[in-house]
Amino acid sequence: MELTLAELARRLGAELRGDGSIVVHGVAGIREAGPGLVTFLANRRYEEFLAGTRASAVIVPPGTAQVPVAALITPEPYLAFVESLRIFDPGMEETALPGVHPSAVIDPAAEVDPTARIGPFAVVGPGARIGARSVLMAGTYLGPAARLGTDCVLYPRVTVRKETEIGDRVVIHAGAVIGDDGFGFAPDGDGYRKIPQVGHVIIGDDCEIGANTTIDRATIGVTRIGRGCRIDNLVMIAHGVDVGDNTVICAQTGISGSVRVGRHVVIGGQAGVTGHVTIGDGARIGAQGGVTKSIPEGESWSGYPARRHLRASRGYAALRELPEALKRLRQLERRLLALEERAPGGGGDQPA
Amino acid sequence: MELTLAELARRLGAELRGDGSIVVHGVAGIREAGPGLVTFLANRRYEEFLAGTRASAVIVPPGTAQVPVAALITPEPYLAFVESLRIFDPGMEETALPGVHPSAVIDPAAEVDPTARIGPFAVVGPGARIGARSVLMAGTYLGPAARLGTDCVLYPRVTVRKETEIGDRVVIHAGAVIGDDGFGFAPDGDGYRKIPQVGHVIIGDDCEIGANTTIDRATIGVTRIGRGCRIDNLVMIAHGVDVGDNTVICAQTGISGSVRVGRHVVIGGQAGVTGHVTIGDGARIGAQGGVTKSIPEGESWSGYPARRHLRASRGYAALRELPEALKRLRQLERRLLALEERAPGGGGDQPA
Amino acid sequence: MELTLAELARRLGAELRGDGSIVVHGVAGIREAGPGLVTFLANRRYEEFLAGTRASAVIVPPGTAQVPVAALITPEPYLAFVESLRIFDPGMEETALPGVHPSAVIDPAAEVDPTARIGPFAVVGPGARIGARSVLMAGTYLGPAARLGTDCVLYPRVTVRKETEIGDRVVIHAGAVIGDDGFGFAPDGDGYRKIPQVGHVIIGDDCEIGANTTIDRATIGVTRIGRGCRIDNLVMIAHGVDVGDNTVICAQTGISGSVRVGRHVVIGGQAGVTGHVTIGDGARIGAQGGVTKSIPEGESWSGYPARRHLRASRGYAALRELPEALKRLRQLERRLLALEERAPGGGGDQPA
Repeated sequence: MELTLAELARRLGAELRGDGSIVVHGVAGIREAGPGLVTFLANRRYEEFLAGTRASAVIVPPGTAQVPVAALITPEPYLAFVESLRIFDPGMEETALPGVHPSAVIDPAAEVDPTARIGPFAVVGPGARIGARSVLMAGTYLGPAARLGTDCVLYPRVTVRKETEIGDRVVIHAGAVIGDDGFGFAPDGDGYRKIPQVGHVIIGDDCEIGANTTIDRATIGVTRIGRGCRIDNLVMIAHGVDVGDNTVICAQTGISGSVRVGRHVVIGGQAGVTGHVTIGDGARIGAQGGVTKSIPEGESWSGYPARRHLRASRGYAALRELPEALKRLRQLERRLLALEERAPGGGGDQPA
Repeated sequence: MELTLAELARRLGAELRGDGSIVVHGVAGIREAGPGLVTFLANRRYEEFLAGTRASAVIVPPGTAQVPVAALITPEPYLAFVESLRIFDPGMEETALPGVHPSAVIDPAAEVDPTARIGPFAVVGPGARIGARSVLMAGTYLGPAARLGTDCVLYPRVTVRKETEIGDRVVIHAGAVIGDDGFGFAPDGDGYRKIPQVGHVIIGDDCEIGANTTIDRATIGVTRIGRGCRIDNLVMIAHGVDVGDNTVICAQTGISGSVRVGRHVVIGGQAGVTGHVTIGDGARIGAQGGVTKSIPEGESWSGYPARRHLRASRGYAALRELPEALKRLRQLERRLLALEERAPGGGGDQPA
Repeated sequence: MELTLAELARRLGAELRGDGSIVVHGVAGIREAGPGLVTFLANRRYEEFLAGTRASAVIVPPGTAQVPVAALITPEPYLAFVESLRIFDPGMEETALPGVHPSAVIDPAAEVDPTARIGPFAVVGPGARIGARSVLMAGTYLGPAARLGTDCVLYPRVTVRKETEIGDRVVIHAGAVIGDDGFGFAPDGDGYRKIPQVGHVIIGDDCEIGANTTIDRATIGVTRIGRGCRIDNLVMIAHGVDVGDNTVICAQTGISGSVRVGRHVVIGGQAGVTGHVTIGDGARIGAQGGVTKSIPEGESWSGYPARRHLRASRGYAALRELPEALKRLRQLERRLLALEERAPGGGGDQPA
């Protein structure tokens, strides 16, 4: 594909400085890009290569001086670069074809917007509703009375169990399971009796949920994921958890039952949060952190058991010194004993 | 739905104290419930609200004095409350329709009980057997010679590989994979050669297995899950593991190859157990625990590397004091050196 | 099945010492095997049982003296034993039938080798290519322009997203998701904006990838898995990771974005690697290790935060002594104070 710089600037929402009639056909790194290509400058470390670039144009942040070629000015050059990549090479589109694939099994009591796309081998239960322009790819399952808003994408093999409510513009990656039973049982003789899980899951608008992640329905009430949350792959969200808006949860993290997670929280990969605690708004939890109690707003915690990040770091740094410190402790004991034995009056305050 | 208290008591197996002809139509919390509703008291902390309740009846444990309205007496008020929720609002049923969905692919050499329900896009291999009243929901796969007992439920997208044997009343949640190959290979030149995994998996009666959990077939012999086990989501059980009856394994835990886990063991979330060790009956492993050796019966272990829980806790508590202790150690060294220099004869027992 | 020892030796590639016309029909352990059965000796601990064996033949390593019956000599007796198991009891074959199942949905613009096998409910997108003798089992999804080499096996419910390139002889277990979007987004007002993930995934020849594992596509460029890698279940490989040839990654491990993992690396279960670091060739990472920086070639690291294994082990051993050491430190302080008070001139070098 070929574009003029004027047209590219328009698509990127960037300001153009230079000749808008120049034609470009692709993008490349600042050292590799030649005539006809666009490059970018997102990191000051690469500024030294700017003067020598052979590219036809450079995507730069505002305030960049001395661009020797045409400049596309935007506050986020890296994002504009990635967007350019997609403009010049959109790749194959991956979606379901318009309409309902003839193999899909749609219950007559389901409501499917005519603009929705339903792929092969999808199953939609009675009472389920699918909003405008939403896409269910191959092999997805939407259970009875589940609701899916507008402009959602469910990638292949997603399972959404009954009565789950999903907002608008939600993306759920392949293999994720939303609304399966919470892990609840009570002792019953030698074994256990299942506690029925009569609650459900609500997912807010603009969330993205990773591949093979699982989000359990509540025992009673709701497991809630707020608006704009980003949840990575293989994450486990247990029954009755409440996650605030715009929170980020990295891969393989687990959140136990009834935890309250605030807004704008960031949780690193493989972290775990014990049941019934509260993570305050804006808190951060380090990767592999093991959270055993509530975390106040805005604090960064890490380690196992998790505590304030600076303290945890000091603890782990001290641990590195510990083997040597134990040697020094033994030396001190020997030296002190020697002193005590020679001290006026001898012996002294010995341990019992 | 409306019920008399007499009928509700009968369904809950509770003893009624009060007027059995009172009609109720739902449940609510002790502070919210008004006339026509049933509430419950499971926690002494809420006893103060009992006198003022406006509910028509309260579910209480035996020995609760001064219930101002009708009482439904049961040793487990919380369970009875959840059961009541389901009685008054059963929600949508989520199962496969009776019979075999026309889209399902059932090998002619499979034996499917006529009372079983097979959903759309299910695949059942040659020699597989499915017992009475068992349900395979949409997109499940039951491999060659796999056996499923009676009254089982396989939620959507469950994969059961060949020769797996599953008992009665087993529930397997969406996306779980049972009987895939164990992780076995041997060095072969610069790379590895696969060790064939010729064993299989046996799962006892009354187990529940979580969403996207994986249980590998044995290299030779059997990976066995005992009766009544509760296994949460995203758990990994490796080849040749043997799990005793009524053991509970929380989410994202991993059990390495050939481990023996006893009966009535409880393993917290994200724990890991190294290969070839034995976890004794009734043992408990804390969340995120890293078990590197065998654990005797009935003991609680935690931490990394895991050890007895009390010791591990003391260790972590001590770690919190460590940075300060290192400072005190340095002070002691300075003070001791000063003393040594002033001591009769000076110098003394210095380190080499 | 019955075989002569001569034929069995031929199939195992073993050297036969003894009567090749003896007929055998199965295998068993060294203490259990009787006439007509073959046993094996892989571990010196079992050598004491050799003299008394009633088996018709024993699989032994070279140099084993005094085998009282026929011997099948091979450098890897355990592997030969497992292979024998499969020879005598091949079990049910688990594959798709030859050809394309009539229910599968193959885009007209896909290229499927006529010797490939495509199971029920498989979906193959436009521009996808499937090589000779490859098998897609039930419910697999191969997205647009994805390429699969020869002799691959995709077990049920595998999802391969668009433009993924998979080499020859690759095995992918059930539920794995290859090529889903990387976890990339940028702050945008109160929330986040998705960074398009325009890269893809390349998987080398002879890899094996575990059940429900996820491997994300790169933001730009490639997430690459080298030749001969062994990746276990529930592993997470993030966008832009590069894994060298013949590397082994155990279950539930997570590798963050843009990490470079060398060749012949071995990573234990539940380990985590932070973004943008390099793991040198031949390095080893212990189970549950939390890697926060680059690891040089050939080194073994473990613990959290991970460091050289010997140091980490010494650290954890020292941690065990810490509670007692803190008591000793307090005693030292008391004793030193007592000495100082009695010292000539008194008091001395006290802390401020």
